[in-house]
Amino acid sequence: MTHRHKRGAQLVEQLSPGFEADLRSKLGAIAPDFVDYTIEFPFCEIYSRPGLDIRSRQFVTISALVTLGAFDQLRTHLRICRTIGVTATEVSEVIMQLAVYSGWPRALSALTIAAEEFREE
Amino acid sequence: MTHRHKRGAQLVEQLSPGFEADLRSKLGAIAPDFVDYTIEFPFCEIYSRPGLDIRSRQFVTISALVTLGAFDQLRTHLRICRTIGVTATEVSEVIMQLAVYSGWPRALSALTIAAEEFREE
Amino acid sequence: MTHRHKRGAQLVEQLSPGFEADLRSKLGAIAPDFVDYTIEFPFCEIYSRPGLDIRSRQFVTISALVTLGAFDQLRTHLRICRTIGVTATEVSEVIMQLAVYSGWPRALSALTIAAEEFREE
Amino acid sequence: MTHRHKRGAQLVEQLSPGFEADLRSKLGAIAPDFVDYTIEFPFCEIYSRPGLDIRSRQFVTISALVTLGAFDQLRTHLRICRTIGVTATEVSEVIMQLAVYSGWPRALSALTIAAEEFREE
Amino acid sequence: MTHRHKRGAQLVEQLSPGFEADLRSKLGAIAPDFVDYTIEFPFCEIYSRPGLDIRSRQFVTISALVTLGAFDQLRTHLRICRTIGVTATEVSEVIMQLAVYSGWPRALSALTIAAEEFREE
Amino acid sequence: MTHRHKRGAQLVEQLSPGFEADLRSKLGAIAPDFVDYTIEFPFCEIYSRPGLDIRSRQFVTISALVTLGAFDQLRTHLRICRTIGVTATEVSEVIMQLAVYSGWPRALSALTIAAEEFREE
Repeated sequence: MTHRHKRGAQLVEQLSPGFEADLRSKLGAIAPDFVDYTIEFPFCEIYSRPGLDIRSRQFVTISALVTLGAFDQLRTHLRICRTIGVTATEVSEVIMQLAVYSGWPRALSALTIAAEEFREE
Repeated sequence: MTHRHKRGAQLVEQLSPGFEADLRSKLGAIAPDFVDYTIEFPFCEIYSRPGLDIRSRQFVTISALVTLGAFDQLRTHLRICRTIGVTATEVSEVIMQLAVYSGWPRALSALTIAAEEFREE
Repeated sequence: MTHRHKRGAQLVEQLSPGFEADLRSKLGAIAPDFVDYTIEFPFCEIYSRPGLDIRSRQFVTISALVTLGAFDQLRTHLRICRTIGVTATEVSEVIMQLAVYSGWPRALSALTIAAEEFREE
Repeated sequence: MTHRHKRGAQLVEQLSPGFEADLRSKLGAIAPDFVDYTIEFPFCEIYSRPGLDIRSRQFVTISALVTLGAFDQLRTHLRICRTIGVTATEVSEVIMQLAVYSGWPRALSALTIAAEEFREE
Repeated sequence: MTHRHKRGAQLVEQLSPGFEADLRSKLGAIAPDFVDYTIEFPFCEIYSRPGLDIRSRQFVTISALVTLGAFDQLRTHLRICRTIGVTATEVSEVIMQLAVYSGWPRALSALTIAAEEFREE
Repeated sequence: MTHRHKRGAQLVEQLSPGFEADLRSKLGAIAPDFVDYTIEFPFCEIYSRPGLDIRSRQFVTISALVTLGAFDQLRTHLRICRTIGVTATEVSEVIMQLAVYSGWPRALSALTIAAEEFREE
């Protein structure tokens, strides 16, 4: 295991416990290297850079995912938001603002998912 | 002029001096009400809500614009970033992270524009 | 309740009975203001403007939703089409034409949904 | 020249004089068959179908082009709108409504182009 | 049945047995002509052109579908890949490369689907 | 200079002479690490993998770029196509097929650019 992999894997495990194991069970047979790339590039190279705090990084990610309509990945990252202490209100503000830029349909779908993920708060 | 319009117009003028006048000169003949909506909905209703700080709001907007490939509007919002004190480093971190979610082509085009807008720093 | 809200709410109720109540039950906890914005901006400000008839407005909306691949919202608006008397043939013509601009995959998915929504006609 | 080609070519010439010749001069060397397909599929097979009037067809096309951010093709179709008598007001209503579904950035870019194309009205 | 239809239908049946019948059962009531167009335009006019081999054509199609997030159609075309002998490794290489251009979320969703479709290999 | 960087840089230089130097001159001030990532991730990790030949990789990239409407990057990759011996006919076949999946507007814009890039052939 390389240094890059170890650093990425630690951060992923902290943000989203079980993420790497789950990914490896789904993609390990067809694309084992892509599991490694996912740990190494987004999480080691990008997320652990010092120039931007983790909360802001989650706002960026959520904004991209909502705009793309990538709602499966949105669910994963809303859980990361909860883990790092981003509140339901902040998530709601981010998505409402995206109605302006990415349109109402994306915002409505995303808020529906956020309402489910933050239900107990 | 309604209260909503006034509140939005003040915020716009602070973030992007001349924006409303410029928009009215371009769109005033074909869509005068849309100039008002732009002041009233994004700027009065959304941007002036208290639940999220203006820096985070700019990260959200930039992330959506890069993902959409809306590079004219990106330029406007990069200038707003400078006005409110977002640094070139922060903008660069946001766009690098978007390479992961929205792909390299969007990130490369956006960084090229950001390099121009933040040249003198 | 503001005048804007009342006007939007009446139009929504006419086009899509139960829409506001349903939205409030899903999003009321996480984003109550967004429920209001949805009634006030799209429905009061935009849909009730006199410059374009409601049938043409539905063609516009459906075209955007199919192009975005926003199929949940497409279902809602196909029901509005039925409510205001847009025929299965017209919907089918709109979607077939979108194959040219937005590509076959969007058109095939949209026609499959339209076939379900207009089954009994 | 097949019957399909002739029918499509007549309609194109009526909607957008010079379109086929212009397309053939640009793409004739690299993709001559695609010039034919463009005349035959969108214009013969789709646009000349009786189930939807030409004005509604233009609303559909413009909505897809704005949503995609396909602004070169938007310009062509705004000219077709003028040729068939769609007014600046109607175009403006269509694009304002698209702000709701496809987001403000697409709508602002599209209105700027529409303002240029309908300037003299 | 025209010559164009026959040629398209033969190719479809070879690539995706049952495709035309299945499409006709789903869309025959609402858009019977679109079933014909689907056989005639993509399959007769495009796929049976001699200038590009069928394997390369599948790489093109899969790349477009992943980029669009059109995952239902992706499933159909992954099956065509298996029918014509494209391997799980090749599909996996195509999708991993798309992470660069179309972003990680599309690639992760597509690899999950490919893992299901190529499970037994 | 790491081994990964060297391997990526060699491949880039072979496919697109001057690419790294050009990128460093444009982005070196604002995002120097992103220049490295671009050499290391797409070119070292992905393009130099043995499971797919370079011609097929270019078909994948072009298909994604056309679908996204990323026409600046398309130009770069059409030149790479010429460098590695992909013919104008093959490029034209790829883009014509994309009309089916990604729609006519993307295909028309892309063919116009391809006609310019392959003019002298």
